[in-house]
Amino acid sequence: MTEENRYARGWDKLKEIDGQAGERVIESLKDIAPDLGRYVIEFPFGDVYSRPGLDLKSREIATVAALTALGTAAPQLKVHLHAALNVGCTRTEIVEIMIQMAVYAGFPAALNGVMLAKEVFAERDDRESG
Amino acid sequence: MTEENRYARGWDKLKEIDGQAGERVIESLKDIAPDLGRYVIEFPFGDVYSRPGLDLKSREIATVAALTALGTAAPQLKVHLHAALNVGCTRTEIVEIMIQMAVYAGFPAALNGVMLAKEVFAERDDRESG
Amino acid sequence: MTEENRYARGWDKLKEIDGQAGERVIESLKDIAPDLGRYVIEFPFGDVYSRPGLDLKSREIATVAALTALGTAAPQLKVHLHAALNVGCTRTEIVEIMIQMAVYAGFPAALNGVMLAKEVFAERDDRESG
Amino acid sequence: MTEENRYARGWDKLKEIDGQAGERVIESLKDIAPDLGRYVIEFPFGDVYSRPGLDLKSREIATVAALTALGTAAPQLKVHLHAALNVGCTRTEIVEIMIQMAVYAGFPAALNGVMLAKEVFAERDDRESG
Amino acid sequence: MTEENRYARGWDKLKEIDGQAGERVIESLKDIAPDLGRYVIEFPFGDVYSRPGLDLKSREIATVAALTALGTAAPQLKVHLHAALNVGCTRTEIVEIMIQMAVYAGFPAALNGVMLAKEVFAERDDRESG
Amino acid sequence: MTEENRYARGWDKLKEIDGQAGERVIESLKDIAPDLGRYVIEFPFGDVYSRPGLDLKSREIATVAALTALGTAAPQLKVHLHAALNVGCTRTEIVEIMIQMAVYAGFPAALNGVMLAKEVFAERDDRESG
Repeated sequence: MTEENRYARGWDKLKEIDGQAGERVIESLKDIAPDLGRYVIEFPFGDVYSRPGLDLKSREIATVAALTALGTAAPQLKVHLHAALNVGCTRTEIVEIMIQMAVYAGFPAALNGVMLAKEVFAERDDRESG
Repeated sequence: MTEENRYARGWDKLKEIDGQAGERVIESLKDIAPDLGRYVIEFPFGDVYSRPGLDLKSREIATVAALTALGTAAPQLKVHLHAALNVGCTRTEIVEIMIQMAVYAGFPAALNGVMLAKEVFAERDDRESG
Repeated sequence: MTEENRYARGWDKLKEIDGQAGERVIESLKDIAPDLGRYVIEFPFGDVYSRPGLDLKSREIATVAALTALGTAAPQLKVHLHAALNVGCTRTEIVEIMIQMAVYAGFPAALNGVMLAKEVFAERDDRESG
Repeated sequence: MTEENRYARGWDKLKEIDGQAGERVIESLKDIAPDLGRYVIEFPFGDVYSRPGLDLKSREIATVAALTALGTAAPQLKVHLHAALNVGCTRTEIVEIMIQMAVYAGFPAALNGVMLAKEVFAERDDRESG
Repeated sequence: MTEENRYARGWDKLKEIDGQAGERVIESLKDIAPDLGRYVIEFPFGDVYSRPGLDLKSREIATVAALTALGTAAPQLKVHLHAALNVGCTRTEIVEIMIQMAVYAGFPAALNGVMLAKEVFAERDDRESG
Repeated sequence: MTEENRYARGWDKLKEIDGQAGERVIESLKDIAPDLGRYVIEFPFGDVYSRPGLDLKSREIATVAALTALGTAAPQLKVHLHAALNVGCTRTEIVEIMIQMAVYAGFPAALNGVMLAKEVFAERDDRESG
């Protein structure tokens, strides 16, 4: 497989999962670190999310859980809260993941995660009613 | 609901999910911090894992992802690798979660997670062939 | 003990320690994750802060130290800086905790903690002179 | 004040708080990074722990809480569990700090902290009965 | 060596490396924790950055890498992005460090680091064209 | 460029930098997660370490600093302490990086880093005298 195929596969996967939020991330890298943008497309999306063996909804559950627990990646968690909803997670399921993270990373991690989910849910309500 | 019911519900859930590994954790707390053992049963298992809204397999995917990403909870990650397999995750799915964590927490987190998965898979092979 | 008692005990303790800041956190969860709000009242406040064996001032010293060291919980650290002052810590003691965290979590953690303390002290000065 | 005074003050404070465990840390640095050993004596002990404004017992409560929450400093947490007991914390108070860290850093942090406390309490029982 | 010399040496080193950004940090501590400001000058700058054995450019590479990986020190990372450029790192080298941190701390750490670099580069462009 | 070229370039770079330690990591993944082994070769080594813009010695300074600061990657830090020495860092420079991490991630991170460096230096002394 050529790198061109890998990039194309990653770009399709990024658009399928993250939608416009993902494209904006790549866009923001263009003038400072375009190669990092290319790697984001190639490795996470072209390689990892394109793998069989775990369905996309489960992959987003894992990502939302991990980013909530780490607590150092608010912009990326917002992108993946949209992504989780895009690939079939319900709002209830997302809130359940946040509550569960109180057990493994403490209540502050869960509370900060819920506040970001609240922002994302409001953005989607605005968009739908817009 | 009384605390007695909550404890009983948590204890049942702990045994369903974590099996003997979970019971050993509670046992090890008896002589030093028995109330922490009681809280482990009541809050994570009696409250959180007993909630509707997210199935047990998805809950374990979230926990395995979070503990792999944090990288500070090897003993608990081992318990939950057993738990994930107990509630229906395949070995392939677990390895996929680990690979995905390379994206969000770096390759060392993924590599250390895979090494723990290797230990857990071997423990289960030993048990089955024992 | 019934869950109702536990909730009531937690709610009293939350108001004693965190005051209005704690109530605002619970309020903000009402429309998205009311059960997480209930758990905050029941487990940290109804269970943990209500325990004998460590006085409230020492408990807040532990919380302020931990949240400063983790560096991922600015909103919760602000709540607990108010809480620490509410249960008898002096401003000097709080600054000492921050300075000490430079040793265990690095100077950035200490500096970020001090900047939050500065905000909290100013909020209380405003309130008193208001 | 000269650096010589600062070093002497730090060394006295280190011995007062950490006892032999602290001296062993400095000893282990002699052949690889003696200056780091000198800085440990001068800055944490000569500067920080020698400050007025927060009593030694409260300082050790802060340190034990922070290291338990961080989860990346097992050897240092063991030294400071001894130190906390040396300056007046009871075993009960230490277990209470650990339980409280479940709230702020998650149950794995609390469980790993309790297991280290168990080791430290056993070391002290051995020493006393030895 | 007296503490007065150490402070003077640290202050000179702070100004050499961090420039006005470093002075502003010390200034902001004056009314709340002046001793923490003094320690920042004495220990990191008077002691550590003044040591032989590693050149200043390599020291800033280490600091930028560590703060990007930790992800909890945005204000300090901005100061040290300026510092790195002050002591001879090129913008390209800084972007390379960020890209490399994707490997060790995950893509969110790298992306957040690049966004801060973008702000710092713009501040310097403004200053030069101002 | 084809993926085959990328893999070959990564494998050469891995051997140049990490030597046998790197090969052992890939070997250990063969029976559980061979694709993760392939990604380690392709992305960190084939893509990142093969980039111009930052020399290999500076890259290893960044990696050693980041892994020491994170404190969750002891096996990988050992590999990269060997790697740093392989590409031209002196033992003194490595100890300086560790000391500097006390400033940014706290003394425990620095102390644990130094203890790993001590092990690595001893392994190399044994090898040379063997």
